[in-house]
Amino acid sequence: MLTFIGLGLYDEKDITLKGLEAIRDADVVYAEFYTSPLGGKTVEKLEELYGRRVSILERRDIEEKAEEGFLKLAKSQKVVLLSGGDAMIATTHVDLRLRAIEMGIETRIIHAPSISSAVAGLSGLQSYKFGKSATVTPPYKGVISEVPYDTITANKERGLHTLLYLDISMCINEALRLLELVEEKRKGEVLKKSVIVGIARAGSDKPVVKADYLDALKSYEFGALPHVIVIPGELHFLEKEALVKIARAPEGI
Amino acid sequence: MLTFIGLGLYDEKDITLKGLEAIRDADVVYAEFYTSPLGGKTVEKLEELYGRRVSILERRDIEEKAEEGFLKLAKSQKVVLLSGGDAMIATTHVDLRLRAIEMGIETRIIHAPSISSAVAGLSGLQSYKFGKSATVTPPYKGVISEVPYDTITANKERGLHTLLYLDISMCINEALRLLELVEEKRKGEVLKKSVIVGIARAGSDKPVVKADYLDALKSYEFGALPHVIVIPGELHFLEKEALVKIARAPEGI
Repeated sequence: MLTFIGLGLYDEKDITLKGLEAIRDADVVYAEFYTSPLGGKTVEKLEELYGRRVSILERRDIEEKAEEGFLKLAKSQKVVLLSGGDAMIATTHVDLRLRAIEMGIETRIIHAPSISSAVAGLSGLQSYKFGKSATVTPPYKGVISEVPYDTITANKERGLHTLLYLDISMCINEALRLLELVEEKRKGEVLKKSVIVGIARAGSDKPVVKADYLDALKSYEFGALPHVIVIPGELHFLEKEALVKIARAPEGI
Repeated sequence: MLTFIGLGLYDEKDITLKGLEAIRDADVVYAEFYTSPLGGKTVEKLEELYGRRVSILERRDIEEKAEEGFLKLAKSQKVVLLSGGDAMIATTHVDLRLRAIEMGIETRIIHAPSISSAVAGLSGLQSYKFGKSATVTPPYKGVISEVPYDTITANKERGLHTLLYLDISMCINEALRLLELVEEKRKGEVLKKSVIVGIARAGSDKPVVKADYLDALKSYEFGALPHVIVIPGELHFLEKEALVKIARAPEGI
């Protein structure tokens, strides 16, 4: 049996009671930390709170060597795989699950809080009005991906909000600079005209949620990672009020 | 202090350790069950596991009488409000939070697993490719809402998946019949041509995830509520494989 367990948003206490029970009931406990940011977690804190030894898997342990490694084990033992956020969101987990099924291994998911729903609660923006999301990545060989900018534009045309995930080590300020370079190249004004929401350390005791226009936000100090960005689409009056009162957006947005 | 705590997807064990700690540390514990389905929860089970008395709030306690009721209490005491799924997703909670802030009450959110991310893991569909979502509601004075159908169509045009929430007491079969009536009226064929995914009891030990075409799915027996539906957009080959292997979709979709 292979059980995928989400660790949730930020620290070792963001797992569910169901997830903790499954860890304590498992024969072997693995975790991977390359598909989502660590936040306030460390292996030591997980091990201490959960009362189990946790072995860390690297990318190649999962993507190349799993059949000879922990998947083999999962044929006869109760194996759990911990990862940040909700479980089975990363493509690599879906691929892994299919390979496990191929080997006749029973699989199961224990869900956890995800940034994709947390951003709605934290900002006061309506969850059902989020369109497609995208990830801002560092330039590759000097080329900046324009996918996030296109996603924002397409969502804005339909009045929808956009959640932008940031590369695992990227901060809001850096992501905004990259988006602005794309806007300048396109001679666009979607970002320039939009209020933007930055969210740092969702799920922690001290999340920062700050809404402002691009020029002000790109030098705002959000503190430690992880960070995400939301570009709102059309705003209902209650959403405007929430951005002003919860995210300290300028009055009159 | 008013803390919004999500109860997660299905039963009393889908809350996080952080959520449980906040309940045990609270002066008063409230819950409301009108914004999301009960699933496998009962007040008795919550009270037993959490070791606290839980008082149920009705819609009017929150929407009309809160200022004279529990919000007044939250000015001087630690009050928590439990609700299903992730916290602060329902509009009524955003409104309540703004009213609390207006009264000078500090507010906080403790997140929980949400159906909006769980559907991706359960079906193997890529989370970032979900567009706007919609809710299928019972006919009102004989009129069927066409919003869900329009949302599906608009998402399909961009190749995106659509998550359809169902009214709190509605099953997949009933929702599909309503959607089919709209399609017939429009002389459309978006649904007829699409593989559709039905998901029952997400977060439970025995979730049902079944993909098929409309004609087969509308008589499929999904068992107890809650139910949701996903209408996939364009499918990547890994998503197709997942729908076949995980959701038992017909080969060759």
